[in-house]
Amino acid sequence: MTDVLALPTPALILDPERLEANAARMLAHCDVRGVTLRPHLKTPKSVDVARIATGGRMSTVTVSTLAEARHFAGAGFDDILYAVGITPNKFAEVAVIGEATGKTIVLTLDSVEMAAAVADSALNNPVLVEVDCGEHRGGRPADDEAMTEIARRLGTQCTGVMTHAGHSYATADTDEVARIAAGEVAAAVRAAERMGAAGAEVSIVSVGSTPTVLHAPSLDGVSEVRAGIHLFFDLSQYGRNVCALDDIAVTVLATVIGHNRAAGVLTLDAGALALSKDVGANAHLPSAGYGWVCDARTLEPLGLSVDVVHQEHGTVRVADPATYERLPIGTVVRVLPGHACLTAAGGYGRYHLTDGRVWDRIDGW
Amino acid sequence: MTDVLALPTPALILDPERLEANAARMLAHCDVRGVTLRPHLKTPKSVDVARIATGGRMSTVTVSTLAEARHFAGAGFDDILYAVGITPNKFAEVAVIGEATGKTIVLTLDSVEMAAAVADSALNNPVLVEVDCGEHRGGRPADDEAMTEIARRLGTQCTGVMTHAGHSYATADTDEVARIAAGEVAAAVRAAERMGAAGAEVSIVSVGSTPTVLHAPSLDGVSEVRAGIHLFFDLSQYGRNVCALDDIAVTVLATVIGHNRAAGVLTLDAGALALSKDVGANAHLPSAGYGWVCDARTLEPLGLSVDVVHQEHGTVRVADPATYERLPIGTVVRVLPGHACLTAAGGYGRYHLTDGRVWDRIDGW
Repeated sequence: MTDVLALPTPALILDPERLEANAARMLAHCDVRGVTLRPHLKTPKSVDVARIATGGRMSTVTVSTLAEARHFAGAGFDDILYAVGITPNKFAEVAVIGEATGKTIVLTLDSVEMAAAVADSALNNPVLVEVDCGEHRGGRPADDEAMTEIARRLGTQCTGVMTHAGHSYATADTDEVARIAAGEVAAAVRAAERMGAAGAEVSIVSVGSTPTVLHAPSLDGVSEVRAGIHLFFDLSQYGRNVCALDDIAVTVLATVIGHNRAAGVLTLDAGALALSKDVGANAHLPSAGYGWVCDARTLEPLGLSVDVVHQEHGTVRVADPATYERLPIGTVVRVLPGHACLTAAGGYGRYHLTDGRVWDRIDGW
Repeated sequence: MTDVLALPTPALILDPERLEANAARMLAHCDVRGVTLRPHLKTPKSVDVARIATGGRMSTVTVSTLAEARHFAGAGFDDILYAVGITPNKFAEVAVIGEATGKTIVLTLDSVEMAAAVADSALNNPVLVEVDCGEHRGGRPADDEAMTEIARRLGTQCTGVMTHAGHSYATADTDEVARIAAGEVAAAVRAAERMGAAGAEVSIVSVGSTPTVLHAPSLDGVSEVRAGIHLFFDLSQYGRNVCALDDIAVTVLATVIGHNRAAGVLTLDAGALALSKDVGANAHLPSAGYGWVCDARTLEPLGLSVDVVHQEHGTVRVADPATYERLPIGTVVRVLPGHACLTAAGGYGRYHLTDGRVWDRIDGW
């Protein structure tokens, strides 16, 4: 731990014990319910984390970019779901990844046009058809007439359906999350049944977001679930009662670079890039700001938030002047992130583990 | 241009003609006023852009990270101001950069403690003392008693003062920006005079933000100005009447990946990482969202904004169903960014120029 606190700041710190416990808990949760966990690797973007996330299985994972697909396929991962709608300008790259690695990239789409484009292309990748269960981003309603036409166009390439209840993040009420989870499952199962009745071979019924996977009353009819932030957790999940504070596995090491007593603030060298500008945690944890400032060694929260961020400055309001004595200029602190996926994607390129190991991560497209 | 529109998306597109015109305009503005432009390279993080930003001079620049300092010093740039408060845990890296490149890194600080720490260290870098002219982030008030003590501790390493009127972004009223600019100049000049009267050798009086540099009624007493976003501009600057829409030099190439007619939205493959979660542009341009969607070829705004972002999805509300016909799934568009510094830092690693050239950029620390 001492070495980690001496790193140049800002630095991205990962606690492997918390990570392993978080990953194991979700794997066990899915195992008990008889569903496969297809972890979302957009959160860690790291092969080392992905091995743990899959319990060593190294297959059946989710990604959000073709750069992630390329990276994980190249590292030996198989059955990689690219969970963002495919378009023809990405077909060539999908083919290259498959040919170069021999691994399977599963595609996602939600329109007759794209089903026809895939079917007419040289690609023979499996495809999941996306259902909109209420998030109103990608997908079509489960009862949409086009679902069976999409399946028909895809023929044997259609292997199932997927949906994502992103709207579960709108509430911190676990009963409400459970209702949304039930709706997520119902929409996916309904779409799968309709497509199956029309002759499609639907073997995969994929649902999930970390909150809905944890709170779903039943996963009957579901074959697999997707979750990612359960690996790291963050203040968004803590504020939504999805995790405990000491489940949060990723923090940002930062240095106090200034005291502005006249203005009543202190400044950290962790700003909009090191922490991200995501403020979603504040909806259910109004003190979250851009992150909670903690003692670097104990991770005890100091009652301070990063209140304002500029590109490389984080400004912390100070109510008690004793704070300046407690945190002299040059002190290192650790910041619990609001949204760990975006914080980790700030450009660090690596995780520094609290035990001294260094794990690479990728960014970009 | 045709080749650029065929790139995998999302991609970061840079118009070199707009960049060169923007850079030349600011250089001429400073030349006429008899001040040196010390461009802030945190915006482009690119050697190729930096050459243009300095008019080929390759010196007297500003950076916000030591990674930028290392990168630009290694590429031959000299007189590099690290405009973020220095702390002892960065001294070793500052020394390494200086020794490895022979270039000068100018440091910033605002406390007696850090002045003493620098003076007691092996570093002999020049130092600017930071003044708070109203932003209330770094710096001390110009009349703060400690300013002369800081100068005394630094001795000959103290070469001047710097301030940044970041609060100029709170208004779109150019008269109000001019008043803030006058205050910025007055604070820097006042601090320099007080430190000079106490025996310090103050040769550098550095002020600036793009709006205040452009609108300052007078720069008397100022030796140099700092600006960065003038290179690229964005909807934040457009909404504040600092630039014209067709001055914006950086855009994100994105693909329409889905139509969700039932929900009244379409989706792009450019989300929180490709565009950033910065919403500062909306304060003065309420339709800005996370960026304006434009025709990819003409850059004509289509009357659509990216209204919601997830990590890799940008969701666009569609009022007119004809939009779906105009923008079929698979269409590429270009998005004018809300805050170009953060958009460019999304992890792209390079700029694709509209003339086909590719310029590398760095990220991280």
